[in-house]
Amino acid sequence: MAKTLLRALAGEAVWPPPVWLMRQAGRYLPEYRATRAQAGGFIELCTTPALAREVTLQPLRRFGFDAAILFSDILLLPWALGQELRYAEGEGPLLQPIRDAAGLRALRPQAVATAIGPVLEVLRGLRVEVGGATLIGFAGAPFTVACYMVQGRGSKEWDQVRRMAWSDPALFTALIDLLTEQTIAYFCAQIEAGAEAVMLFDSWAGVLAPSLFRRHVIVPTARIVAAVRARHPQVPVIGFARQAGLMLAEFVGSTGVQGVGIDTSTDPGFAVREVPGLVAIQGNLDPLALAAGGAAMLRETDAILAAMRGRPFIFNLGHGIMPQTPLEHVAALVARVRAA
Amino acid sequence: MAKTLLRALAGEAVWPPPVWLMRQAGRYLPEYRATRAQAGGFIELCTTPALAREVTLQPLRRFGFDAAILFSDILLLPWALGQELRYAEGEGPLLQPIRDAAGLRALRPQAVATAIGPVLEVLRGLRVEVGGATLIGFAGAPFTVACYMVQGRGSKEWDQVRRMAWSDPALFTALIDLLTEQTIAYFCAQIEAGAEAVMLFDSWAGVLAPSLFRRHVIVPTARIVAAVRARHPQVPVIGFARQAGLMLAEFVGSTGVQGVGIDTSTDPGFAVREVPGLVAIQGNLDPLALAAGGAAMLRETDAILAAMRGRPFIFNLGHGIMPQTPLEHVAALVARVRAA
Repeated sequence: MAKTLLRALAGEAVWPPPVWLMRQAGRYLPEYRATRAQAGGFIELCTTPALAREVTLQPLRRFGFDAAILFSDILLLPWALGQELRYAEGEGPLLQPIRDAAGLRALRPQAVATAIGPVLEVLRGLRVEVGGATLIGFAGAPFTVACYMVQGRGSKEWDQVRRMAWSDPALFTALIDLLTEQTIAYFCAQIEAGAEAVMLFDSWAGVLAPSLFRRHVIVPTARIVAAVRARHPQVPVIGFARQAGLMLAEFVGSTGVQGVGIDTSTDPGFAVREVPGLVAIQGNLDPLALAAGGAAMLRETDAILAAMRGRPFIFNLGHGIMPQTPLEHVAALVARVRAA
Repeated sequence: MAKTLLRALAGEAVWPPPVWLMRQAGRYLPEYRATRAQAGGFIELCTTPALAREVTLQPLRRFGFDAAILFSDILLLPWALGQELRYAEGEGPLLQPIRDAAGLRALRPQAVATAIGPVLEVLRGLRVEVGGATLIGFAGAPFTVACYMVQGRGSKEWDQVRRMAWSDPALFTALIDLLTEQTIAYFCAQIEAGAEAVMLFDSWAGVLAPSLFRRHVIVPTARIVAAVRARHPQVPVIGFARQAGLMLAEFVGSTGVQGVGIDTSTDPGFAVREVPGLVAIQGNLDPLALAAGGAAMLRETDAILAAMRGRPFIFNLGHGIMPQTPLEHVAALVARVRAA
């Protein structure tokens, strides 16, 4: 097992640490924008294997990252389940919201396998091309995916979602359970198509009260980790419950993840104290520090590296890279991490 | 010192605990909507003493809360400093953003005293009318106010703000310093007009990396607490750094606040372990649990009360009450807390 990222996820304190960036295939890259323009919509880009493969590989060619993550979207599963989805310019995703049992019943789990076929095709084509980098599979976590499915669009507060979780726990849990089962199958299919690790993105976990966090973030994540590991014991799972730093130790301890993403607001020293020494930590430079560049970026990078030295660690951002990030800042960051 | 809220802020484990709700003067109340319709805009409502007094008192009349908080807006200070501000329907506040030193110089600190005159008039009229409730003064914290001043509008990520904090720390710190000085003067004027406690709202503190949190949340809050307490040693300060639960112990320890708000995502048991026993904790029912009502709301309320029993505590929400909240849910909540 020579790949640095897999060694870190197996509990080894690889140094200098492997490095990749969330949303590294994104709008800050001119070659991404060019390929993006060739696809019709965003879902088309994710489901056209040649184009999705191309954008997945672009950041590796330019910066030599230690991982490539499947180019996809957390809403691919609702789309595959038949929920109406469109991307409005400047507004983000818009879905026909699910607010009752009839909305839930209208989903078509039997349609998923066909719909995700092209996504698995993306991975099959990538396995060899990533070379020494690790190919990571991708899915939104059940709670975050449910957020969009219930609210119908992005939100700061996710009021419809949280209200349903409190007032109709049976319905909301049924949706979470459906997404949990689908995510297990989706991850297993990704692994069978070539993914060497998988990462679960729970971008909105931080809005939940602790009792709902346990029920709708920790429980589904634990089920996904257990089921994926039962079928593929050698494939590590990275969990990322953004803005849920307070629950970090409980999240790691109760889910059994092999790696845990930490967001921008999490103090690296706190994470080192809270996370068991064999679980890899992944994070957490502020994407705006990277956009700003210069001395402040290097100082923050050095502080993160100093806190993480001697434990399994994967350098990353605390959230996705911003579109306005200058390319030379990314190059300077990678050089700094490699010189650690 | 007979008022329950002031006793809790003095370190006493008052039981049943005092109770009030963030944004208790708000759109969920029909009488608020009626008064709101009489004012032209939102700033007009805040600066017309008879109307601002009326909406401040409405929730006390209906629910007998233990505190009234000055009806105001965190953007009152930028407005008083002369920054162009309007409220667009469905979009929230829009300001002429400050992006450089010229923008900062264009602010007019000398205009603030006159502009806030009507706000102080609101407090003078309220002091007697609140009866046994505690009259709390209100201000946005420097970082959160700066967020709107730099970004120019609401945001999930506050990318312009964080980028300025990293790339031009001198400019951003100058803005924070200006707001810190103004907030000290504003709080002291509020106290001299009748406020018996003051609360500082840092709604967006949770987006910051720890090093920026220390510089732009903890340092200004500590300065405000020290300066206010130097002039008014008997007046307690409540700090509320929303979504910054990881920094809770450091925030409390380094700022010297007498009370600390905790948001929805903070585990009450964690807060009890992290906050020194003489500092009052204020929070933290999920506003969506209140909107949902019923058994889940009562169960969550009971869990918070059980965690907080025996220490200084003020029952509140973890964030402002939602407009769609049924009035009978609020009444049921208050009854449950009073029966603790």
